[in-house]
Amino acid sequence: MTHAISLADLAVHLGAEVVGDGGRMIEGVRPLDDAGPEHLSFLHNPKYVAAAMASRAGAILVADAAGLSGRDLLVCAEPYLAVARALGLFHPRPAAEPGVHPSAVTGDDLSLGDGASVGPQAAIGRGVVIGARTVIGAGCVLGDGVRIGDDCLLHPRVVVEDGCRVGDRCILQAGVVIGSDGYGFATVAGVHHKVPQVGIVVLEDDVEIQANTTIDRATMGETRVGRGTKVDNLVQLAHNVRIGEHCLIVAQVGISGSTRVGRHSVFAGQAGAAGHLEIGERTMVAAKAGVMKSVGDGSVLAGHPARPQREWMRTQAAVQRLDALRERVGELERRLAALEGAEGGGGGS
Amino acid sequence: MTHAISLADLAVHLGAEVVGDGGRMIEGVRPLDDAGPEHLSFLHNPKYVAAAMASRAGAILVADAAGLSGRDLLVCAEPYLAVARALGLFHPRPAAEPGVHPSAVTGDDLSLGDGASVGPQAAIGRGVVIGARTVIGAGCVLGDGVRIGDDCLLHPRVVVEDGCRVGDRCILQAGVVIGSDGYGFATVAGVHHKVPQVGIVVLEDDVEIQANTTIDRATMGETRVGRGTKVDNLVQLAHNVRIGEHCLIVAQVGISGSTRVGRHSVFAGQAGAAGHLEIGERTMVAAKAGVMKSVGDGSVLAGHPARPQREWMRTQAAVQRLDALRERVGELERRLAALEGAEGGGGGS
Amino acid sequence: MTHAISLADLAVHLGAEVVGDGGRMIEGVRPLDDAGPEHLSFLHNPKYVAAAMASRAGAILVADAAGLSGRDLLVCAEPYLAVARALGLFHPRPAAEPGVHPSAVTGDDLSLGDGASVGPQAAIGRGVVIGARTVIGAGCVLGDGVRIGDDCLLHPRVVVEDGCRVGDRCILQAGVVIGSDGYGFATVAGVHHKVPQVGIVVLEDDVEIQANTTIDRATMGETRVGRGTKVDNLVQLAHNVRIGEHCLIVAQVGISGSTRVGRHSVFAGQAGAAGHLEIGERTMVAAKAGVMKSVGDGSVLAGHPARPQREWMRTQAAVQRLDALRERVGELERRLAALEGAEGGGGGS
Repeated sequence: MTHAISLADLAVHLGAEVVGDGGRMIEGVRPLDDAGPEHLSFLHNPKYVAAAMASRAGAILVADAAGLSGRDLLVCAEPYLAVARALGLFHPRPAAEPGVHPSAVTGDDLSLGDGASVGPQAAIGRGVVIGARTVIGAGCVLGDGVRIGDDCLLHPRVVVEDGCRVGDRCILQAGVVIGSDGYGFATVAGVHHKVPQVGIVVLEDDVEIQANTTIDRATMGETRVGRGTKVDNLVQLAHNVRIGEHCLIVAQVGISGSTRVGRHSVFAGQAGAAGHLEIGERTMVAAKAGVMKSVGDGSVLAGHPARPQREWMRTQAAVQRLDALRERVGELERRLAALEGAEGGGGGS
Repeated sequence: MTHAISLADLAVHLGAEVVGDGGRMIEGVRPLDDAGPEHLSFLHNPKYVAAAMASRAGAILVADAAGLSGRDLLVCAEPYLAVARALGLFHPRPAAEPGVHPSAVTGDDLSLGDGASVGPQAAIGRGVVIGARTVIGAGCVLGDGVRIGDDCLLHPRVVVEDGCRVGDRCILQAGVVIGSDGYGFATVAGVHHKVPQVGIVVLEDDVEIQANTTIDRATMGETRVGRGTKVDNLVQLAHNVRIGEHCLIVAQVGISGSTRVGRHSVFAGQAGAAGHLEIGERTMVAAKAGVMKSVGDGSVLAGHPARPQREWMRTQAAVQRLDALRERVGELERRLAALEGAEGGGGGS
Repeated sequence: MTHAISLADLAVHLGAEVVGDGGRMIEGVRPLDDAGPEHLSFLHNPKYVAAAMASRAGAILVADAAGLSGRDLLVCAEPYLAVARALGLFHPRPAAEPGVHPSAVTGDDLSLGDGASVGPQAAIGRGVVIGARTVIGAGCVLGDGVRIGDDCLLHPRVVVEDGCRVGDRCILQAGVVIGSDGYGFATVAGVHHKVPQVGIVVLEDDVEIQANTTIDRATMGETRVGRGTKVDNLVQLAHNVRIGEHCLIVAQVGISGSTRVGRHSVFAGQAGAAGHLEIGERTMVAAKAGVMKSVGDGSVLAGHPARPQREWMRTQAAVQRLDALRERVGELERRLAALEGAEGGGGGS
């Protein structure tokens, strides 16, 4: 059964201020168009003030009460962060059974932290360290010598191959592969000989890797994802890539071998980067862009090959007007020919 | 051993009409260039009539007997649909052992339909409902409260996370992940805070999702794939996406959060769509296109940013001719300069 | 503990010649900037000679000793191949326990080669053949009638579906799916009817398929990957595709149904090819390119739609200069108008 919390209590949990009836009971969080009187909703774009006024929501999380008179509100500086916290309050993660499920297989020298849980059908290698309160989901496979930090959540069927390391509070969604071999071959006379990939992958603290994403181990040394970085589904991070702290790498992006991405950068969906690049901090790469050379801090890129987004947009617009340009050139040719004819005629006189 | 069926019996099964020898025995289906006298082949493009006449096939499925005199034929309105049915006749799905394999792990309150099968190494959560005759393949993981309809086939290693729902007659290929968390974060001062994803995924009836595709659960509410829609390998459908009925979403497509795609639409391979769009019914999106804004019913789009395909093709052609255009401009400049010189000379006279 | 090998012994193993102190003991391989006196490093681009001279490496693998006087060297024709072999010497693959792990499930008529190993939580179908010394990793699923050759390595959670065949010395990284159904439907009145996919996948010898890549079984016949071809992560090979020998198919590439790629071809990351194409041998396709029509041997392609790379680069450059071209046209229009005005004045005289 859903539990209910008063608006006043919610305000304490969320660090917000009540405007209106603090005694109102709230049972969950819903978007404006789907909320009823028992729900908290939220408004993080002022253009939806009218929708907020029209909503049946019992209360609304906002940064600014302006235009919402008569509504019960929770006012705070970061309403979307408060939404995140409220969702956590109403939907606590179900507790996993601590200990190792009888159907799981574990190797020698397992170090299992307090309250940690290994789910059904998991296979854990030798010398693995699993931190306190960490949950290893059903069907996960951890190779020999893997180290997983505290308070991590590995969803079902994650693979972490031998020797790789995961920090604290990391989340790995289902189907993720950490530490697959990098794509490295020595080609001689057209035949590709495998270069053993003997490095590892390191995920720092607070990293989330989403479903079916793959992160290859380094040829030598480390492939590394920085603290707080969030990687979406079906992303490919190649061997020896280094992603800085607090980056967002959106679905289906591919980063080629040895490229470094500075912190607080964003790659939008289906973008890519060539290998051996240095990509500065706070770089923004638009969807489907292909970064082919190194760029400095604060770059905003689009297109393939990627160039400054403003330039790309101007170029796209110019390309759209090519037909008109060609017509202008044709008109010039006609007028010039006429003039040359007149001139020629004049010259002949 | 392969069983043989007479052409006359096949005609009954496939709703076709025999032209020629109804007693001819058929043992399988093969393409024209690979068929022998014991095989049924097919012709669904009239330009291959000569290949059909040259084929060693015992009989041919066609819509129209014209040009095929002397051959044994099965004539029907939809020969490729008949091929599909014939392949089903000659290659029936092997029956799975009903019941739960002893190596599978099941949670409390499992509701298992008549004839349903749970394969080896599967892990089934609490309160799961599995419909009649549904097959859960080896190594699948179903979270708590998952509901799978009747006559479904889950290939090995599919994950359906907590609370998600799958309709009747759905097929999920190996490695599919249904209900992974959406990519939602509240960013404050450059730090990304996870927004709990508390919605679900709903697959309606007759949906097929192919290998290693990922479909994220909604932040709140539902991510939904409409009846009869077929989603190819390695596709990403983000949180709160709604795909209409009878769509085709080809390999490696990515649809961003909250975008809605109208029914009978097609996204070709590696195409993408930005978030929060409304894409009309019967929209055709070409391979690698990037849809960046909402479009109405019946749109045919290509390029990135996507625009009407005809316009994209014209633009591509114009870009190819840019060198010629630049030469024309250079020629104009030379001729104009000559004229200006003459004029200047004339003016000086 | 790491074992040490003398430079002289290494030279024998790697087919190289010692320059300097053959008695020097080496404990591992490291890049130039990370190596210490106990490490072998390598130089395969002459532009890094200065870095090699500055490196703390105990010895360096090179093709040419020029500019490296005073350093201990191993000289051989193919230093990067020698690096691959040296990494193999210092990091031998850990031996897997021969036999079937007690937690694995095996079907009837399993043929298990000498020294072969089936890992924990694996599920093996009926009539499966696993070659000598082959390792089937944790959580792998092999369908009925699957045949895996000798000396293969299947990393965790690989799926090989019914009837598919894998040659000798193949490596399949974690999460790979071989033999998922092709994306084939007979569409009648807007409804998509599944065409049973009754063919198989064949991987020839020495093929490597990397993490979470999917290779669909043929509708009828075979999908085939040629000997020595290496396929990176998250690649999609559709039904009836044929990839020739010794190709490189880089991450997130998609090859559509029935397309054939000639041997020694390379598809760079996120490239794609439409269906039913013939792509010649030694074709090079640049990152993100979209091959839309058949091409002959030795083609070098880029862009979407793909065209010869040189042409694509010239076109990209021309597009960048469109603004300048438009300005030139505007200037011509102004000058021509001036001239026409003068001429008109002259004509009026």
